[in-house]
Amino acid sequence: MAIDLYWGSGSPYSWRVLLALEYKRLPYGSHVLQFSKQEHKSPQLLRMNPRGRVPVLKDGDFVVFESLACLLYLDRQYPVPPLFGTSAEEAGTIMRVVCEYQAYAEPHLTKIVSAVFLETLDQEIEEVTRAMHLAAGEARTIEGRLSRSDWLVGEQPSAADFVVFPGIMLLLRAMEKREAGDLRSRFLPMSATYPAIARWIERMERLPGYDRTYPPHWREGPPRG
Amino acid sequence: MAIDLYWGSGSPYSWRVLLALEYKRLPYGSHVLQFSKQEHKSPQLLRMNPRGRVPVLKDGDFVVFESLACLLYLDRQYPVPPLFGTSAEEAGTIMRVVCEYQAYAEPHLTKIVSAVFLETLDQEIEEVTRAMHLAAGEARTIEGRLSRSDWLVGEQPSAADFVVFPGIMLLLRAMEKREAGDLRSRFLPMSATYPAIARWIERMERLPGYDRTYPPHWREGPPRG
Repeated sequence: MAIDLYWGSGSPYSWRVLLALEYKRLPYGSHVLQFSKQEHKSPQLLRMNPRGRVPVLKDGDFVVFESLACLLYLDRQYPVPPLFGTSAEEAGTIMRVVCEYQAYAEPHLTKIVSAVFLETLDQEIEEVTRAMHLAAGEARTIEGRLSRSDWLVGEQPSAADFVVFPGIMLLLRAMEKREAGDLRSRFLPMSATYPAIARWIERMERLPGYDRTYPPHWREGPPRG
Repeated sequence: MAIDLYWGSGSPYSWRVLLALEYKRLPYGSHVLQFSKQEHKSPQLLRMNPRGRVPVLKDGDFVVFESLACLLYLDRQYPVPPLFGTSAEEAGTIMRVVCEYQAYAEPHLTKIVSAVFLETLDQEIEEVTRAMHLAAGEARTIEGRLSRSDWLVGEQPSAADFVVFPGIMLLLRAMEKREAGDLRSRFLPMSATYPAIARWIERMERLPGYDRTYPPHWREGPPRG
């Protein structure tokens, strides 16, 4: 069956699935949609995902969306190397770390990143400060895991790494904007504030195929403003 | 190995795991924690889950928390009957429906339920009205699925049913409070507004062991106020 992935440059949800496809060394048609041209709301896309959101994964006639569902599908269909571990216990712990990230870290990262990119930091400074505080707490937990192990769970990369990594990269990208101002010193330089996370990022960047997953428009330079 | 579940009465996240344990007919020690006595913050619980949240599932020496991680663990360790389908495609679709519920329905249900139970409806009427509107849209999608099939995905109950059901039951419980007022007519009677969901609830209630999953304090009568 032919695999096709429809994705958006800079979408952390898309990035997760790209990392998984490359990790499993699966061949796939790579279709970058231009958000600015509303390509994710095209009739073809809406037929596959009525919500008009990416990523959308198509494998033969089967369509799945929502990044975590794409990861679970890929892992069941193409089990080696595994995304969700080699035992029930590993699967449980990997999903636990994924759920904890989604419930307790991601909403705060989204708040910070949105405020920086939409340039609403001044109006939302109280909420963003609170989000920074909570995100930093979660980052310390992740730093702790990565100071004891090369990957978030177990001895190999897993769905946990692929889910968390793009969110952290998006935060770092936001910190490059002038708008980020004082926030920057809370997180940067990563090698000083979160050294184990910094080393893990380098490890992720050395995974085979990583370059094909990197948001194309990020290569064009730092974000404007 | 002996399974133990630590849970809270009325916690929709706990209810998911109880439903899964009963569906798989697994014997387990059932430990209801009293939130009012802060039993979920006891040293024993915090050793298992430093966040002090339920459910917490213990199987022999292995501990897992976050409801979706508990479901995935149980399904890998005790595969029959399956919670995540019998094929990769079914697994993907089940997880997709779970993720869609968590991303697009649950936050709105939580907003409504919190406003009713915390009696902040008057102060938050605009946000709650918006949440009602969005929740109703998602409910129509679920109604559509259940008008074509007995269960949310496939021919058997799955993780999708066990994740979504407790959230809907909690909403119905909130609607019993006097505070709910006009909101009630948006959802009730379910047999008129969402007939397929109403029949699915009856189907869920007939599952073996269902009674053991029902929040004990709900049996004591409608919510106060």
